[in-house]
Amino acid sequence: MAAVSRTGRAPENLALVPVIHIIGWFVTALGALMIVPAMVDGAYSSPDWKVFSVSAGVTVFAGVSLLLTTSGARLHLSIRQGFILTTGVWLCATVAGSLPLMFSGLGMNFTDAFFETMSGLTTTGSTVLAGLDTAPPGILLWRGLLQWIGGIGFIVVGLAMLPFLQIGGMQLFRLESSERSDKAVPQAGRFAAMLLLVYLGMTIVCMGSLHLAGMTWLEAAVHAMTTLSTGGYSTSDNSVGYFRSPAIEWIISLFMLLGSLPFLLYVRMAQRRGRFFLLRDEQVRSYLRFVVAVALGLTGWLWFTDNLNVGDALRLSVFNTISVITTTGFAANDYTLWGNFAQVLFFLLTFVGGCTGSTAGGIKAFRFDILGLALKVYIQRLIFPHGTFAATYNGRTVASDVVAGVLLFMGLYLITTAVLSILLAMTGLDLVTCVSGAATALGNVGPGLGPIIGPAGNFSSLPDSAKWLLSGAMLLGRLEFFTVLALLSPRFWRH
Amino acid sequence: MAAVSRTGRAPENLALVPVIHIIGWFVTALGALMIVPAMVDGAYSSPDWKVFSVSAGVTVFAGVSLLLTTSGARLHLSIRQGFILTTGVWLCATVAGSLPLMFSGLGMNFTDAFFETMSGLTTTGSTVLAGLDTAPPGILLWRGLLQWIGGIGFIVVGLAMLPFLQIGGMQLFRLESSERSDKAVPQAGRFAAMLLLVYLGMTIVCMGSLHLAGMTWLEAAVHAMTTLSTGGYSTSDNSVGYFRSPAIEWIISLFMLLGSLPFLLYVRMAQRRGRFFLLRDEQVRSYLRFVVAVALGLTGWLWFTDNLNVGDALRLSVFNTISVITTTGFAANDYTLWGNFAQVLFFLLTFVGGCTGSTAGGIKAFRFDILGLALKVYIQRLIFPHGTFAATYNGRTVASDVVAGVLLFMGLYLITTAVLSILLAMTGLDLVTCVSGAATALGNVGPGLGPIIGPAGNFSSLPDSAKWLLSGAMLLGRLEFFTVLALLSPRFWRH
Repeated sequence: MAAVSRTGRAPENLALVPVIHIIGWFVTALGALMIVPAMVDGAYSSPDWKVFSVSAGVTVFAGVSLLLTTSGARLHLSIRQGFILTTGVWLCATVAGSLPLMFSGLGMNFTDAFFETMSGLTTTGSTVLAGLDTAPPGILLWRGLLQWIGGIGFIVVGLAMLPFLQIGGMQLFRLESSERSDKAVPQAGRFAAMLLLVYLGMTIVCMGSLHLAGMTWLEAAVHAMTTLSTGGYSTSDNSVGYFRSPAIEWIISLFMLLGSLPFLLYVRMAQRRGRFFLLRDEQVRSYLRFVVAVALGLTGWLWFTDNLNVGDALRLSVFNTISVITTTGFAANDYTLWGNFAQVLFFLLTFVGGCTGSTAGGIKAFRFDILGLALKVYIQRLIFPHGTFAATYNGRTVASDVVAGVLLFMGLYLITTAVLSILLAMTGLDLVTCVSGAATALGNVGPGLGPIIGPAGNFSSLPDSAKWLLSGAMLLGRLEFFTVLALLSPRFWRH
Repeated sequence: MAAVSRTGRAPENLALVPVIHIIGWFVTALGALMIVPAMVDGAYSSPDWKVFSVSAGVTVFAGVSLLLTTSGARLHLSIRQGFILTTGVWLCATVAGSLPLMFSGLGMNFTDAFFETMSGLTTTGSTVLAGLDTAPPGILLWRGLLQWIGGIGFIVVGLAMLPFLQIGGMQLFRLESSERSDKAVPQAGRFAAMLLLVYLGMTIVCMGSLHLAGMTWLEAAVHAMTTLSTGGYSTSDNSVGYFRSPAIEWIISLFMLLGSLPFLLYVRMAQRRGRFFLLRDEQVRSYLRFVVAVALGLTGWLWFTDNLNVGDALRLSVFNTISVITTTGFAANDYTLWGNFAQVLFFLLTFVGGCTGSTAGGIKAFRFDILGLALKVYIQRLIFPHGTFAATYNGRTVASDVVAGVLLFMGLYLITTAVLSILLAMTGLDLVTCVSGAATALGNVGPGLGPIIGPAGNFSSLPDSAKWLLSGAMLLGRLEFFTVLALLSPRFWRH
């Protein structure tokens, strides 16, 4: 019989008090953040300032209540508490973040508000809102803020939590200092502080550039936040295409790409001025090679088969390639009208993703690198069974548990895509919408393919059941599957 | 830098003489087999008997030439010779087997004849021929024979070569007796002899049943051969749907399923009469559970959403589910007209495949079992990093090299599907045709989805480039990727 047997040490501490305490901090901070759109709505004389003020009050009250009832908690987390915390923060923040959307004049129900907030906090960028061009400024800013904090939140998770929890081969990215013990939270806090400056600085530079290129300050702020976070929420139903500005498209292309690179390297570069680590990193190198190859290949293809001139072909190829690979999901034009080759290409690019330790989702570059190395070693071993072969990555030997973690991550990714496609099909959606919808949600990309959820479409017409399925998929993808699935294992909750 | 380093023993013998000698035997036997359709054409007074006689002469001459120029070769193969032999036999047999198709009155060019023969010998069943209902009987029989010998050829490869070459975790199926040395060829010969009786016996029972259910002897012979081999070539453009016979559909359902189970177990059951091994095998059990679950689920779905009565829903669900999962690819009706749920379901089923050691292609049941076990162990280890967990399958501990082989096989399978989809898209085909065409060729299933290559369609209108790509994909899938890809490694040919 197939069986999994277990022997070993007694399980670790599973008390929820410290977890709830930390979640309380996050909820309180999120509530405080709602003051920003309240003030902006006030400045624009939009009546929605009341909505944000009330939501802020409710959220801060809930957060502080959590803090007070759990005060005095030891903030030293076990592995299992780490799992609960990561998923718990995202879920609680999504519920709290959807309050302003529900209470606002947009008249969203809980399903739509939850979907939109989950899509924001996971930096997916799929939207159920139409009429963005005339939406209140506070709402537009709030959607941008959700993606911005979701982005830095995921960087912290990718730097501190996933390597600590050993998710999908991420132990490869354990920092030297993290190998001693399981003090995840102080570490995350230290990283967050270092990162925040870099992240904020890059956002401000992006915002300034976009303003210079012709955006209003509000548009520039929202797009800067949703570009750096590779989220993809826009201030217009036509996304970036609304601005009809090559300069804006090039600026956004650059910052989407920067948002999909490992932020740890930026921090190191900032700490040791003048030393340029970026291109010495193997993941960054293979990732950039891939992006350049795809973008140039598509440019050539469009130039040969379409009526575009070289300049437009290059600009639109680069923009759309980067937008999908970095899992941002902005649209400058409806690339699904570029014919079959582009459709198949963009469908497959939905799975790729950026570098680990960035704001991007998807399978991520280092996992493809590890897969390639493992395949190479495997084929050599098939041919010469008595030889000894070893793979190295960034100067370290790739341990077999890293390879196993990477491959199981990929296997789980594709099985989840398959199961989700089947479930979506049961809601009545067509083949292309189901499969591309599953892929775009799990990869936190944003648009899918086909007339409904394609780059020119919108998720609003999907049945509620499909919206809940996709919301769950965004969370699964953002937290790299295992973080969430571990909680579903009956053994997890056993003492 | 990413690198693969190697140390170890000197490479083994790479002399091609014994390989060519064995290929000579196969080519000679294939030529001799062409006498059968020649005689049938003679009996039916079809002028094509000359075509088969001439092809037989040419093929036997070529085969005997190979034998004579390599006589006295030691038939003791090294690992690398095993790789060359396996791919070489399939390629040479495809070229030889396509001769009658090229010379016949059908006027097929080399591309079409090669595609059709490759589709036959790999038991894929995709066809470029239209007008089967009026085709000469010899051609119909030849297509059936190609699949029949392709089927038993793959069982032998799956029992003797793939475990010996350790392809994709297949070392799990090494027989006790094969662990001593690398005498692949005598072993394969012994298995082939034992198997041939079982395979022939089952084919004859299937043929008799189909004749009783109303088929002519020729139709019954062809369908029996293409059913047991999970190939799917038919004598009508409308496939099994032509006969409009529930009895025929049930008989074919049963024998497709039998063809997708491990033939080793049949042989053991035949050797030790009365002992019933089949349901004690874990792969068989999980596979049958899956088939039953999908077939019943689809029956329920059709019953609720379609106008079918329960009996028709059950029969057509069982037939089409088994046809796709076993990678046969017969069509009793156009299931793509059943709506979106059925389309997504059948697309995903294209990847599944039957049991290993059978005639079926695809990823295969045991690999999903191993993936499931590995995921279970992995999640437990994430939660309890200090615990010790072990997985067992069919009473044996699953070694980490088996898990790695299985996962790398799946990774390579999906990456190949992606690359092939892109290449097919460059020939101008649409998204659904590209992705389902890649999946159906690599899984050796037969039909894809969409108006062109769907169950009611035909591969004849595809561009030549697409036909060559798909022919290569069928070979890759049939020989489980690594067998072919190892030959493309520069290191393979180094002394």
